[in-house]
Formats: sequence, C-alpha cells, structure tokens
Amino acid sequence: MTRLVTWLCFLFIIGACGDKTNPNFKTVSTPEELEEALKNVQAGDNIVLANGIWKDVQIKFIGEGTEDKPITIKAETPGKVFIEGVSGLKFGGKYLVVDGLHFRNGHSPSDAVIEFKVDENTIGNYCTITNCVIEDFNKMHRDDTDLWVLFWGRHNTLSNSYIAGKTNRGPTIRVDLEGNESINNYHKIINNHFGPRPPKGGASGETIQIGNSFSSMSPSYTMVANNLFEECNGEVEIISSKTNFNEFRNNVFYKSEGSLVTRHGNYCTIDGNYFIGDGKNENIGGIRIINTGHWVTNNYFYNIKGKNFRSALAVMNGIPKSPQNRYNQVTDVVVAYNTYINCDSPWQFGVGQNLSQEDVLPSSEIRSARPIRTIIANNVIYNEKGDTSPIVEHDKADGVTFKSNAINNQGINFQTYDGLEAVSFEVKEIAENILIPSSKIAIEPYKGFEFEKISKDLIGNSRAKNNSIGAFVSTDFKDPKILDRSKYGPSWYSIKAEAPEPKTIAVGKAENLQSKINEANNGDILLLEEGNYDIPKSLIINKRLTIQSLDKSKVVLNYSGAENSPLFQLQPKGFLNLKNVTLKGNNTQYAFASLKENMFTHFGLTVADCDISDFNYVLKVHKESFAERITFENTSISNCENGLELSEETNDLGDYNTEYLTINNCRFNNVKSNVIDYYRGGYDESTIGGNLLVTNSTFTNCGAQEKSGILINSHGIVNVDISNNTFNNNPVKLVALLWGAKNNSHKNNEINNSGEIRIEENLEMKLMY
Amino acid sequence: MTRLVTWLCFLFIIGACGDKTNPNFKTVSTPEELEEALKNVQAGDNIVLANGIWKDVQIKFIGEGTEDKPITIKAETPGKVFIEGVSGLKFGGKYLVVDGLHFRNGHSPSDAVIEFKVDENTIGNYCTITNCVIEDFNKMHRDDTDLWVLFWGRHNTLSNSYIAGKTNRGPTIRVDLEGNESINNYHKIINNHFGPRPPKGGASGETIQIGNSFSSMSPSYTMVANNLFEECNGEVEIISSKTNFNEFRNNVFYKSEGSLVTRHGNYCTIDGNYFIGDGKNENIGGIRIINTGHWVTNNYFYNIKGKNFRSALAVMNGIPKSPQNRYNQVTDVVVAYNTYINCDSPWQFGVGQNLSQEDVLPSSEIRSARPIRTIIANNVIYNEKGDTSPIVEHDKADGVTFKSNAINNQGINFQTYDGLEAVSFEVKEIAENILIPSSKIAIEPYKGFEFEKISKDLIGNSRAKNNSIGAFVSTDFKDPKILDRSKYGPSWYSIKAEAPEPKTIAVGKAENLQSKINEANNGDILLLEEGNYDIPKSLIINKRLTIQSLDKSKVVLNYSGAENSPLFQLQPKGFLNLKNVTLKGNNTQYAFASLKENMFTHFGLTVADCDISDFNYVLKVHKESFAERITFENTSISNCENGLELSEETNDLGDYNTEYLTINNCRFNNVKSNVIDYYRGGYDESTIGGNLLVTNSTFTNCGAQEKSGILINSHGIVNVDISNNTFNNNPVKLVALLWGAKNNSHKNNEINNSGEIRIEENLEMKLMY
Repeated sequence: MTRLVTWLCFLFIIGACGDKTNPNFKTVSTPEELEEALKNVQAGDNIVLANGIWKDVQIKFIGEGTEDKPITIKAETPGKVFIEGVSGLKFGGKYLVVDGLHFRNGHSPSDAVIEFKVDENTIGNYCTITNCVIEDFNKMHRDDTDLWVLFWGRHNTLSNSYIAGKTNRGPTIRVDLEGNESINNYHKIINNHFGPRPPKGGASGETIQIGNSFSSMSPSYTMVANNLFEECNGEVEIISSKTNFNEFRNNVFYKSEGSLVTRHGNYCTIDGNYFIGDGKNENIGGIRIINTGHWVTNNYFYNIKGKNFRSALAVMNGIPKSPQNRYNQVTDVVVAYNTYINCDSPWQFGVGQNLSQEDVLPSSEIRSARPIRTIIANNVIYNEKGDTSPIVEHDKADGVTFKSNAINNQGINFQTYDGLEAVSFEVKEIAENILIPSSKIAIEPYKGFEFEKISKDLIGNSRAKNNSIGAFVSTDFKDPKILDRSKYGPSWYSIKAEAPEPKTIAVGKAENLQSKINEANNGDILLLEEGNYDIPKSLIINKRLTIQSLDKSKVVLNYSGAENSPLFQLQPKGFLNLKNVTLKGNNTQYAFASLKENMFTHFGLTVADCDISDFNYVLKVHKESFAERITFENTSISNCENGLELSEETNDLGDYNTEYLTINNCRFNNVKSNVIDYYRGGYDESTIGGNLLVTNSTFTNCGAQEKSGILINSHGIVNVDISNNTFNNNPVKLVALLWGAKNNSHKNNEINNSGEIRIEENLEMKLMY
Repeated sequence: MTRLVTWLCFLFIIGACGDKTNPNFKTVSTPEELEEALKNVQAGDNIVLANGIWKDVQIKFIGEGTEDKPITIKAETPGKVFIEGVSGLKFGGKYLVVDGLHFRNGHSPSDAVIEFKVDENTIGNYCTITNCVIEDFNKMHRDDTDLWVLFWGRHNTLSNSYIAGKTNRGPTIRVDLEGNESINNYHKIINNHFGPRPPKGGASGETIQIGNSFSSMSPSYTMVANNLFEECNGEVEIISSKTNFNEFRNNVFYKSEGSLVTRHGNYCTIDGNYFIGDGKNENIGGIRIINTGHWVTNNYFYNIKGKNFRSALAVMNGIPKSPQNRYNQVTDVVVAYNTYINCDSPWQFGVGQNLSQEDVLPSSEIRSARPIRTIIANNVIYNEKGDTSPIVEHDKADGVTFKSNAINNQGINFQTYDGLEAVSFEVKEIAENILIPSSKIAIEPYKGFEFEKISKDLIGNSRAKNNSIGAFVSTDFKDPKILDRSKYGPSWYSIKAEAPEPKTIAVGKAENLQSKINEANNGDILLLEEGNYDIPKSLIINKRLTIQSLDKSKVVLNYSGAENSPLFQLQPKGFLNLKNVTLKGNNTQYAFASLKENMFTHFGLTVADCDISDFNYVLKVHKESFAERITFENTSISNCENGLELSEETNDLGDYNTEYLTINNCRFNNVKSNVIDYYRGGYDESTIGGNLLVTNSTFTNCGAQEKSGILINSHGIVNVDISNNTFNNNPVKLVALLWGAKNNSHKNNEINNSGEIRIEENLEMKLMY
C-alpha cells in the first residue's frame, strides 16, 4: 500500500512536471534550431523562442494544428524576444499561433512582415498572431511597398498587438481576397492598439485596407473590433474597406487624421465606434460613405472638425456607371442612432461632387451621381456653439430621407430639413471626450426597415424597451474608459512615457561638434559657445536635437565640406531644431539635406533666427524623404544658388516631401533659382496634399536663374497661403501660380518689379488610377 | 341520447358544409366584388374568382396572411378564369397566394402584368403566384416596355406556371433589388414551363433577368430551379443573372436560342441543368460567364452548335476597370463535372475579345482582360465526329487551369492542353437527348478547393464514394424525362397539340377574298381559281394562311386600293404564305405592309413563285413590327418605286424588323429605290443581329433614284451573305457595303455596270450603354 502511494505520488510529480519535460514544449535559440523544430511540428506542439535578439529570421510556420491543439510559437518571455534585421513570418496550415514577439530595427524581406500564406498552395487558416509589437519596421525606401500584416485564407486573427510607425508605402494591415480560398474570410482584427502612423506624404498610407477594387465584389466578413487607432495619420483613409459585409465595431479613433471609408464594396456595418477629435485639427475625420447598403449605427463623434471628405459623416457622390476602381453611387445606406457632439457641419452630402472639373477630367472621373435611397434617422447633434450649416450639400441631398433626428444648435439658424428637429437639451460629461444628453430627447425613434435589428446602443444597452434616438439610450452610465491603453495591444507593452527632461550640453568651438551630437540623447540641447566653428564634414543628425547659441552674430558655422555635401545631413529620425546661429558655405554645398538613399523613416527641420549664406542649396530634400514639418522663421537666406528644393517626387503618383512647409518672417536675398520649389504630381485625393505657408517675408533680387520663371513654385500643393510678403526686384514672370480649385490663397502681398501672382482654376494632373 | 346523436349529426353536417358557408371562402364574380372582398381580408381567407372572362381587372391584393393561414385568390376552376384586356395583379403584404388564372388577350396597364409591390410602402413578401398561364399578353407596341412578372420584396414565388409569347420590349420575368427590402430575397422561380418567346429583334428580350447593373453589388439568392425553357429565343440571354449568389439548378433549356449568362454579379451556382440543342441551330447556346466566383457544375450539354458568345461554355474577356454596366473580368470561376456531348468547340475563352475594334470603340469598351484564377476540371467531352478545336481561345487562356478533363475526339487531332486528356470511351443513349459514357472513365477527379461541396451528380447520386468525372457518376440510370411537359407549368394546362390538318378552300374570282380569309382557320390554304381578281381594299391577314394558285400567269390580283395602302395588310399573328400568283398595283400602293401601329405581336411572310409589279413599295415593314422570317423566292419584282424596306428602326437601340430576310432566285427589274433596305443601328450584342441572304438573283436597272447610292443596304445587319447573283446596269455607286468585322460575306457575284461590293472592316455604331 505504501509502495502504491509512493508510486502515485511519483506519477503525480511526473505529471506536474509535464510542462517542462513534455516533448510538446521545445525551446529554440537560433533561427536554425527554429527551422529544425518546425520541420515535424504536430498538433499541440509549443515552440518557445529564447529571449534575446533574433536577427534576419524568416519564419515559415507550417503545420496542422487543431482547434483544441493549436501549434504555438511563443516568446520565452513576452516582449523579450526581438525580431530584427530582415525578418518576417509566414503562416501556412491551420490553428497556428504566434505570441509575444517584438518586431523592431528591421524590415520585411518581401511584401509583408507577417503574411498568412507561404505560397499559393500553403495558406494559413484559423491562425493567430497575438500579443506582439511591430514598430518602425520600415523598408529602407518610402516607395518600396509592403504590408506589416497581410491576411489570406480564412478565420485568421490579429489581436492584442501594438503596431506603429509605418512610413513606407503600403497599408499597415491588408486583407487580400483574390482566390476562393480567401473569400468569406471572417478574419478578426481585434483588441489592437494602432499607434501613430505619420503622414506618408502620398497615397497608400492606410492603417487597414480590406480587399481592393478588383476584389470589391467578394464577400469578406472581416471583423475589425475593439481596437484603438491613435494618431493614424498616414493618409485620408485610416480604414479603407473595399469588400463586402465587413464589420467595424466598438473601435476608438483618437486624433487620427483620416476617416473610416467604405471605399469599395457594400453592406458594411459600422456600429458603436468612437471618433474623437481635438476640436481644432481639420484633418481628423469620421466616416466617409461610398457604395451600397452600409449601416452606420450607434457611433459617437466628438470634436470632429474635418470638412468635406473628412467630415464626421461624408456621403459621397458617385460617378455614373463608374469604372470599377472609382466611385460607385451611394444607395440604400442607413445612418441611424449616432451622436455628434461639437462637430463642424457633421453631415455632408454629395461630397466629391466635381462638376466644375469637367474641363480637365474625363467624364469617367466626374462624380455627379447623388446618393439615393439613403436614410438618416434617429441621430442626435449637439453643438456647444451653434453651427450655421450642420448639413452641407455639395450636391442636392434629394435622395436622402431624414427622419426623427434632433439637433441642439443653441438657437442658431440653419437650413431646415424635414426630419431634423431643433430641440433644446443639455449635455453632461460622462468621461473625458464623452458628452451625452442629460435627459431623454422627446422624439420618437423612426422605425425604418429592419431597424429592429439595431437592438443595442453603443454601450450594449437594449433598445427593445425605453429606446431613444442617439447612440446612447441611457442618460447615465459609467466611464467606458475608451482611452485606457491597457485595454488594447499586448499585455506586456506600454508605450514609453514622456521623454526624460532634455539636457543642455555646452559645446565649445574647439570641440568636435559631431561627437557631441553623437553623445546627446533624443531631445537634448547643444548650446554652442561663441566663436567660429570650422566644419569640415557633414554633421549627421539622426535623433531629435536642438542646436542653438545665445547670439547668432557670434556663432558662425563655416562649412568647408565637399561640393554638394550638406552641412547638416538629416537622417531618418533626425529632427533638427536649429536656433540663433550663422551658417556659411562656399557656394557649392548644401546647408541642409536629407539622405539620397535609405530615408527609411521621417526627419524634421526647424530653423529659427539664423543667417544662412553662400550655399548651393539651402535645403535639398531628396526623393523618398519625408518630413512632417519643415519650418524657417526669422531667418535670413542670402547669396545662394538655390533656396528650398522639395521637388524630386516627379513620378506623379501623388507623393511629396513634406506636409507643412512654413516660411515666416524670413528674408531671401539673391537666391538665384528654386527659391521655394515644392512639388506634388498626380491626380490623387488620398492625402492632405501638402501645406505651403509663406508669410511676412521679403524676397529681393531672387529667381534670376529660375527656368520656370516662377519664384515660389508650389505645383500640385493643395493648401497654399502666401500673405503679407514683400517682393522687390525679383526678375521672374510670376511670383506664384496658384491652384484656384484647391485651397490656395494669397493676400496683402506687396509686389514690386517681380511679376505677379496668377491663379489657374483647374490644374491638369496625370490620372493615377 | 337520441337527441344528443341528432345534435351531433347536425353539428357534423354543419361542419361538413363549412367550406361553402365558411366566411373564409368567398366567391366573387366581378372586379368590383373582388375589390370589395379584398378590403377587409384576413389571414386564412380564400377568395374564389368565378369562372369566365374577367376583363380590365387590376387587382391590388393587399393583406397579411401567415405561413399557416395564407390568403388566397383562386380560380373557381383552374384555367377557367381568363384575365383579359388591360389587366394586372399587384401583391402587397405577406403570405398571399394567387392560383389558377389564365392571362390572355390583353396586356398590363403598367410596367408589369404581375408585380410583387403595390407601392413603395406596400411590398409583397412570402407571396406566391402559381398554377397560372400568361400567354401573348403583349403591349400594343414592341417598344412599350413591361415585365410579365416583376419581383420585389423577399421570399416570393412563381411556380408551376406556363408563360409564353412575349414579343414586346422587356424581360418576361425580372427580379428587382433596389432598396434593402428586396435584397437577400430568396425568391423562387420553380417548376415553370417557359414556352416560346420569339426573337425580339432587339435588346431586352430575356426570359428571366435578376437585377441590373446598378444593383449588381447586391446579394440576391434567387433560386431558379426545375423549369423548362423551350424555344426561349427572345435575345442572346435566356437568363441574365445580374446580382450575387443566385442559383440555377436542374432546369432544362430546350432548343432555346440564347444562353444562361452571368451578366453582372458574382458567385452564382449553375448546377445540374440540361442544355439541349438540335445539332444544327447555331443560335442555341449554353452558359456564358462574366465576373467572379461562379460555380458551373454537373451540367449536361447536348448538340449545342452555338459559337463564340453562344458556345456551350463561353468564358468572356472583361474590360480592365470596367464601367459598372459593362464587362468585369472573369476571376475565381469553377467549371467542374460537366458533360458535353456533340457540341462544337464547347469551351471558348476570351469570348468578346475585341482588340481589333480599338479604332472605333472607346477604351472603356475594349475587352482585353483575360479570365484569371479559373479552373476547368473533371469535365467530359464526347464528339461523335472529332472536333479540330474543342477549345477556342479568342484570347489566351493563360489564366485558366485545366485538370482531369477527358475528351473522346474520335482520334482527331486538336491542340493539346495539360489537363485535357484524349480518352477512348463509348457513349450510350439513356433517353432521348441524353447520352452518357457507357463505362467509367479512368481519370481520377481533381480535388480542387471546396470541390467536396459538389457532393452530388446531376441526377442526385452522391459523389462521396465511387466518384467520377462528368455530370453523371453512374453509367446506368432511368430516363429523367426532362421533356415531359406535365412536370412543368400548371396541372390543368397542356400546350395545344399539333394544329389540325389544314383545309384547302377554293376561292373563285367572283367571291369576296377577304370573307374567305376571315372564314379560314389558322393554317388553311386558299386556292385561288383562275382569273383576274380586282381587290379594291387591303386584304387583312391576321392568321397563318397560305394563298396560292396553280398557275400564276392565270391568277392576277389587281389592286385598286388607296394610295399607300397595302394589298396585303400583315397584322399581328398574320403569317402569309403566298404562292404562284401575280400582283399588280398602280404604282402608288404597297404590295405588303405591316400595321403602322399596334403590331403587338409578330407576323411572317413568304412569297414564292410570284410576279409583282407596279407598286410604290413591294414591302413596307413599319417601326415596331417584327417578323422572324421574310422570304421571297422565285419571284419577279418589277417596275416599282421601291423594293423591300425594313428601315424604320432608326432610334439606334439595336432594334430591327426581321431576323431572316431571304431573297433567293428572284428577279428585280426597274426598282427605283430602297431595292433592299434593311437597317439595324446601335452598338448592341444582345441579338442575332439580323440575317440577310441574297442569292441566285438578278438585279437589272435598279436603284436609279436610291439616294444612298447603295443597291442592297444592310447597315448594321450582322449576318449578310450575297452570293451567286447577277447585277446588270444598276446605276448605283455600290452594290453593297459590307461590315467586315461581322459575319458579312459575298461571293460569285457577276457585276456589270453596277458599282462594286465594298467591305468596311469596322462600322461606327452609336454606343447604347
């Protein structure tokens, strides 16, 4: 008996130790060991990646797990396994899970970092990537397209991951449907935190794209739910839904410059999402509707100031008999039970109507087909400050029916619509960014066809009894904590807190400035002591730095570097803030330039209170380089062959080199050509399209050798403002040629002996699509 | 006790009589009574229409039945209730049934005879029309569009009905999907007999159309099953599927000139259908594929001789980025387990490729996008006579994969394809038109993605075990009796047997010819005795008649009727076969003409062995008139102002006036203009496009006043053959101007002093779409 007990105890201990000795668990430490371990993988197997940096690892995860016994690849400690270099992961087979990896300092070897397909015959189904991070995993060139997660097959999942920092061409996530194996896919993209994606400065910067126009007829049934989209600013579409029957539920779009767009495909459900703006940024949008049969229900919009394409609800005009890749008419759309708080002109119809472009665009580009059979019902609008046009009709909304909508417009008049009733009600703040009516609005909800299927409100309360218009049926509920980051992304990862307090590092003229730069941390300030600095070689800027002095007249950087080399070489992640210094060249070099190659992520430049003279180029931004902002303020630029040149994106695919080029209170003297040359080409509407602000500046004796005859060349830039400047004796034909149909303007400029500012209403652009 | 028994007996009798006295049954005899009865109709109510003719009755059948207690309108005796005049039926509500009516001698008051909608807010759902006949219920004008059954809503049914004879514009049946109320409709069109629909001579002559290009993105799920389509010749599409997820199962297409076409929309199932040709008629087709994701399985094709658009399997080229109403590329299509017996070149790919038309068509009409991701697997081809090209590539089939297909080509060489194996096997006749391999073909079926879902064969045998390629897994089974008409349409209706033996009626010259015509029955022969007949007024032909004599030189019809009146007025259903007579006019009248108005159905004309002279027009076919065949043989036509004119269809919508205009062995002398003028305009591919055959004839001194300068004018006619004719001294510029890109040809003509025959490769046509 004792012996039996002993045996049982022994067996129990064996059992308890099973996890460690179980052949189903295998820890691997090198790509080779991993490859070997994957060779004969069986249902139920668990492969553990040892902590550490895995470089240049291309995982082909092929296996046949089962629902009960998936095959997993896990980090030994989630977040301690770093995938770096030229690395990627491909799934082929069934019930495969990858858990806890951190992709950084590298890029994909192919067209995707993570792909649910190994080859045409080896596709992933029921596979999951979860609890991972992909950060700044960019190709070396902006034009080198890839995806970070590329879905194929069916029933695959991306969950609880943090994904941020994509700058190269290509949506962050894409679902592909080509082939019957990948339709009716029921993929899930859930509980993720999509962190900042900076503006791409060109098309193809979506965070999620589901299908494409060529698969826009296919049933997809992809579910995007419970994600946080934070500063996803890549392009005008945060999510581009291009197939049928997709669902977007309970996501939070926070300060993201763009919209959720039903670009192609039909019958999507957009239910229970939060769209939160900052009350100022007009690039932050809501939902843009194209095509047929979408249901937009229970969504909450706060502080959205986007207009037109980026309005809280933008219902587009279509192209009659549209080509497959353009704009079908909006039909049979239902927008019901949404709440709009402090949004400017939240409902815009006939968006994209462009009849005035008939002279420059082919008829297959003219959006003249107005929305039809579309119903806007049971919605609530509240404006803290009354809005004179809560509804904007870019084209007649005569195919739209309004029923049982309420607006509190603070008594401010607006065009009346049957079905939009001015009502007086208060709102109260339930949580940060969440304001709801503080009492029930006395409008009976309209009962449209199948409205009974909208059975719950935004926070899950039943609408069966005690129903009311707007996104919330109750007038009191607890904070849904939509911005609690711990609810999204990996459990082990939290986004870095604020950068540490910047250090100020004094630099004497005898010292090697580059070595001081190298020693500095992100955000630090180099304070240059008085004196003349002889700089024989380019200074490499690859971090966020301020370089400044107390008196620019006494701090002079004399650049003696090679011809066509820059004094400041702006590399990826190089954000230079230069203040109060004098820069001098020998007329053959550049003051500032990006890299010619491998600008794998963005840079930035602010120049203030500087004197710059005797360079070939003041600024040369090379192709595929992008800065969100480039600013020159209170700066004098003189005796240079060229000024600021950002005009190498000439493939006319809508790309450009900076989002905001700002020149304020500067003096340009004797800059011979390319005084300001900022180019964007190609008929594209997916970006902000660039911003050129030239104000309070003087231009004297500039442009003498400018071949275009234009002093400030902003070809194709969408937003241009030239105001309060003085132009004296510049031998050019035109000071500027503005694009009238876009947001180009000028005022209060004094122009003496310098040509004129001309406005061309319609600019002919190359059709990209 | 006795009393109790008596009471019980009484109650039983009351109960037994219930059907007659039950308030749920109500017999009505007039439209007014019916309207009254419908006013307060309740679930379970039955309204009985008294036998007889109901004229000008427009039924609005509105009610709320239940699944268990539908509301019915029934014929007192099925087939004894005739709906005539301007009549129609509209359903609004739920669970409504109409049973046993016969629509004839009339037409709809609106755009539909039967419509599942009363108005926008009153739509039929779960409604049924069954056991009815709609025959020749045509609008008075061909261009006056209507439908005979127009579906809206959801879950409606057309079953066991006989529907034939539509000649006016508009599909016979159409399913409309505009509005969310009508998507996901799951309508059923089952067990019907679609009898002859003659060629329309223009577009919009489908038997069934499901949706349209503007609703082509919508899910439809319409089921078309177990119907017989017999001589449904209206246009090139018998069924035009234009929405998604429709199913076509177990239908029989018998000698129907056209195809089942997936014109718009995607993911249709075409399973288990029979396509039976006559082995000669090249207008009888099979299945034509456009768009994405269709599954064509278990179908049987016999004796199909159609080519190109009308081949047994026609897989089209698409237009890159096609406009919504044109041709999307074929992708992701599966054609598996079908059997093709004695079909000419049954598989054709890249159908519609028209790169050669780039000069005359805009790029948005050029079909250059070849099928991709398309698989042709497990099919069987048997040719009694070997076929040198069982596969035709109008464009490269490089996006098509062939797997495990077998062909018995009787040893005749053909271009080899991987996946199409020449195999020797015998066939045997299971039933009329049904030949199957007499032994199992030793090719293992290919297992494509989800092929396991093709779980049964054409006759319902499981493919799970003992599977084989082709439509039938067994090599022996009993006659499926696919042409047993009693299986289709109403139980009470059988199509009339052969016409009775024609009577020959002798007519003396003293008699009133018109009264004899009136007395004759369909198919009778009027034998004219010798003599000169003075005809002061048009002879009205509104039935099928032969008028002939034994010696044309001795039977002369002298027409003294009014200017521009016809000697023979061809009315709807007037089919005149004129033989061996002489017709003479006074140069101001017509020999033959259709009605100027109200040609609500077709006519026909054969003229043989006649002498015709001294008319203004020999034949004038007015706008909206159509004859399937017009033939002149062995006939002399002389001294007329005009010849045969069929050229009033100038709206360029693809319409024309006769399918076959045949002139054989005729002599034209001194016909001044419009010698032959046969017109079709508009860029349209939905019809045969007309046939002009001019053979073995002589034309002398004709065309002197012809303004076009063309003797035989066949503008836009697709099939033209001018052979073995002699043209002498005709003062015209051209004998004919042929359309090279179409099926126009000429040979062995002797042309003396008469211009020339010119071929123009590409004819510019007005775009209709």
